[in-house]
Amino acid sequence: MAEIHTLMVNDVPAFVLHTVDYKPLEDMGFTVVEHDSADSLLSAGPQVEYVLTWDFEATWYQRFPRLRCVFTPAAGDDWARPDPSDRVPVSHGSYHGELMSESVLSALLFMNHRMPQMIRNHDRRGWDRVTQGKSRLLSGQSVLIVGYGHIGERCARVISPHVREVIGVRRDPSLSNGAPIPVRSMSELPELLPRSDHVVMLLPGGAATDRFMNADRLSLMKPGGFIYNFGRGNSLVEKDLIPALVHLGGAFLDVTEEEPLPQDSLFWSHEGVFVTPHSSAIFEDYRRLFIEEVCEHLGNASQPL
Amino acid sequence: MAEIHTLMVNDVPAFVLHTVDYKPLEDMGFTVVEHDSADSLLSAGPQVEYVLTWDFEATWYQRFPRLRCVFTPAAGDDWARPDPSDRVPVSHGSYHGELMSESVLSALLFMNHRMPQMIRNHDRRGWDRVTQGKSRLLSGQSVLIVGYGHIGERCARVISPHVREVIGVRRDPSLSNGAPIPVRSMSELPELLPRSDHVVMLLPGGAATDRFMNADRLSLMKPGGFIYNFGRGNSLVEKDLIPALVHLGGAFLDVTEEEPLPQDSLFWSHEGVFVTPHSSAIFEDYRRLFIEEVCEHLGNASQPL
Repeated sequence: MAEIHTLMVNDVPAFVLHTVDYKPLEDMGFTVVEHDSADSLLSAGPQVEYVLTWDFEATWYQRFPRLRCVFTPAAGDDWARPDPSDRVPVSHGSYHGELMSESVLSALLFMNHRMPQMIRNHDRRGWDRVTQGKSRLLSGQSVLIVGYGHIGERCARVISPHVREVIGVRRDPSLSNGAPIPVRSMSELPELLPRSDHVVMLLPGGAATDRFMNADRLSLMKPGGFIYNFGRGNSLVEKDLIPALVHLGGAFLDVTEEEPLPQDSLFWSHEGVFVTPHSSAIFEDYRRLFIEEVCEHLGNASQPL
Repeated sequence: MAEIHTLMVNDVPAFVLHTVDYKPLEDMGFTVVEHDSADSLLSAGPQVEYVLTWDFEATWYQRFPRLRCVFTPAAGDDWARPDPSDRVPVSHGSYHGELMSESVLSALLFMNHRMPQMIRNHDRRGWDRVTQGKSRLLSGQSVLIVGYGHIGERCARVISPHVREVIGVRRDPSLSNGAPIPVRSMSELPELLPRSDHVVMLLPGGAATDRFMNADRLSLMKPGGFIYNFGRGNSLVEKDLIPALVHLGGAFLDVTEEEPLPQDSLFWSHEGVFVTPHSSAIFEDYRRLFIEEVCEHLGNASQPL
């Protein structure tokens, strides 16, 4: 009987799996062995065929001769690293769009109807019926998704009914043939940024996206427009954002250059900025969606039992 | 040439019409005469055929012998009162659903992902990645609309793609034949309240709705459920809501029994409550939608020129 070994340790409680979460795998006939440390997982090496983990270092693969797949919930390869020998595939979670799309739509509606200012109205027990009168309906507006991949596609589907237009940009638009919205190349940003009311960043981390949204690109944004970062903090130059907020309507940052965002960051006090703690995918459903996806992969594989 | 007289005075800037807003009416051939006081409007009485106004008292009708219609943006008859003689119709704005549906969807996403708590996290410059992990995706949840009329129908259409189920209740469900969602009678609330994750109140004001949502009905709500009031403050008993918040997930109040909400209200400081200043329809688009609707009515009427 095939064994699945797990190392689902994480600082975020919603991302920590427990025995009860693995029941669908046991129902499929797998034996689930839970580990609470890397040492424990590594010592089980020889008999392990499948691993469910947040972390897997490149050097570990040689310790798992029978390993057939590493399943990790993360969308990116920051924590579970690829096998240098290319022997063992790493399966990344692909359900983040289902979670994040609710957070992105919420942020669009939140910023558009001036909720950062209405929070301050609430704080001072006020009755400000002026500020929101400057908001136009989201239904007449345009959204640009920068970094259009499978998360962006899910967001586009969820957002589209509520706006006039959603456009995506990515390095290689040919990868999005058949997308439900127009997908352009990054080179078209100089034309797209000035006509977008909302710019939603979903770029992955890494050197290729470092400092992507800088003073030059921010200056191209529409006066009064809103910027959102739900990708990775390295892609938005924070010291360039503060001065840009003079002409922008505001910023919603779920990720920041340094996380947690330092206490002395100006974003905490800026009236047009709202910060959430890299939490757009933090839902109770996270664990269930991960296990459902693992089950689907294992069910589709040649019978493993 | 028919004259349209206006008295569009209001405390909310987004609800005050200006000369530029009337251009579509002038383009139709009407002469628009703007008044800034009731006295001024009343003195024009005899030649007035159409009035656009926030306020029209029942006693005024006899002063306008040629009056053919009163157009008011308000959805309810709190301010522009009906003609006691039934001679002159009052046309109420019917576009509030288009505005309010964005606010209602926003509030659902906001409460569901624990944003009142995340506002406090932001206030203390925190990095709370625990609280939102108790949220389940909105897509798996059920919404009950209490007071299902044309605003409720628009909200239901906007919300439906994002939830498992939307159900409406109203006094006479037969008025909602053909509705896009199931519409039940108020008598079914004892079965519906316990299974709804979100209860959105859209009841009109008046004696018939006074104290509608009281301790008994609140106690029937699902543990952890959220309540929203986007109708009128008289329909929710505020002194009953505070103790109910022990078992509820939270409350989003756009309207309150007394407006502005008094400074000493416990709602300002309760961690699960967020208050907006009766602003769910406050958008820049309000004026445009009102004039578009007046134009449509006048265009459909027998040629008035």
